[in-house]
Amino acid sequence: MSPIEFYFDFSSPYSYLAAEAIEPLAAKYKRTVDYKPMLLGVAFKTSGMAPLTEIPLKGDYSKRDFARSARFAGVPFNMPHPFPVSTVTAARALLWLKQAHPARVRDFVHGLLRAYFVEGRNIGEAPVVAQVADEIGLDAAEMAVAVQEPAIKDQLKRHVDEAIARGVFGAPFFFIDGEPFWGNDRLPQLERWLAHGPF
Amino acid sequence: MSPIEFYFDFSSPYSYLAAEAIEPLAAKYKRTVDYKPMLLGVAFKTSGMAPLTEIPLKGDYSKRDFARSARFAGVPFNMPHPFPVSTVTAARALLWLKQAHPARVRDFVHGLLRAYFVEGRNIGEAPVVAQVADEIGLDAAEMAVAVQEPAIKDQLKRHVDEAIARGVFGAPFFFIDGEPFWGNDRLPQLERWLAHGPF
Repeated sequence: MSPIEFYFDFSSPYSYLAAEAIEPLAAKYKRTVDYKPMLLGVAFKTSGMAPLTEIPLKGDYSKRDFARSARFAGVPFNMPHPFPVSTVTAARALLWLKQAHPARVRDFVHGLLRAYFVEGRNIGEAPVVAQVADEIGLDAAEMAVAVQEPAIKDQLKRHVDEAIARGVFGAPFFFIDGEPFWGNDRLPQLERWLAHGPF
Repeated sequence: MSPIEFYFDFSSPYSYLAAEAIEPLAAKYKRTVDYKPMLLGVAFKTSGMAPLTEIPLKGDYSKRDFARSARFAGVPFNMPHPFPVSTVTAARALLWLKQAHPARVRDFVHGLLRAYFVEGRNIGEAPVVAQVADEIGLDAAEMAVAVQEPAIKDQLKRHVDEAIARGVFGAPFFFIDGEPFWGNDRLPQLERWLAHGPF
């Protein structure tokens, strides 16, 4: 069974909510989760979109909906400031970790998302990313060096370009057996797919 | 108990899907549905948005998602051409009907949405709106006169401006007891609100 490909941006509230739900769902249907960092800012340049909170009318509703959707899911959430933040360092760190310490990927992703969306720590800053890595027992110094390597920088660029070429215009964005599902609110459809296959 | 305010655009696929679900939901919780026509084109001018199918990357996914979401809901759906269409005549007709024959509103709304999203008839054309009205036993001639009245034209303008002032940037868009819910995928949250009140 192929893994659930989970494209997300570390600065996306609906990605955080989806991340909290996807592991139990994957386990239930005996799949694994392939965490794929996305840079929404790059996708927005292609689609002509903008961060939700900056769109007239939609912005105010969105903030209300983030919080209500979190309560609906029973997940802690505090709207962070600043929002959004650059997730380039976090994304590079994740790509590095997938190669260097794949068993620690899950803890790192959830640690960073909770640091931002629960604890309000600015994960756009490299020292905060390092701190979170340290808190879950990773070698923060090793990571700090790795995210500055040209190879990782190039890899992230290619990774994001490839995502856009596959049609990843937002986050969270899932592929299951090649089928695309966009948004935390597609989890019910995603679950039907996992349980019964194509519909 | 206040009615469920249901803002929708006759040319919006997710509005059609929501319309198919909202009556049983309202009945279950002893509410009525107040059908409020929206002109998404006007809202898009304020928000800077565009029809989903015209947004790069998002467009292709959207068409796939319309059809899959319909299958998920067990509702017939055929992507209509042309899409989208102007819904000014349909919206005026609905405003008139709410005053002249309020008991026929539900049949008219569902008749028009199904004509477009199941039968592929171009409800952007006034004769098609008249035909659908005739099919459900309304006086199409009376309606054709009514939708040309300056008073109805003004009323629709004010109605849409008021919707935008309330933050209605998309469709379907619901208010329950003043709480806003955007999108067909918010029906689960909407149902929790109906069942248990604010959360």
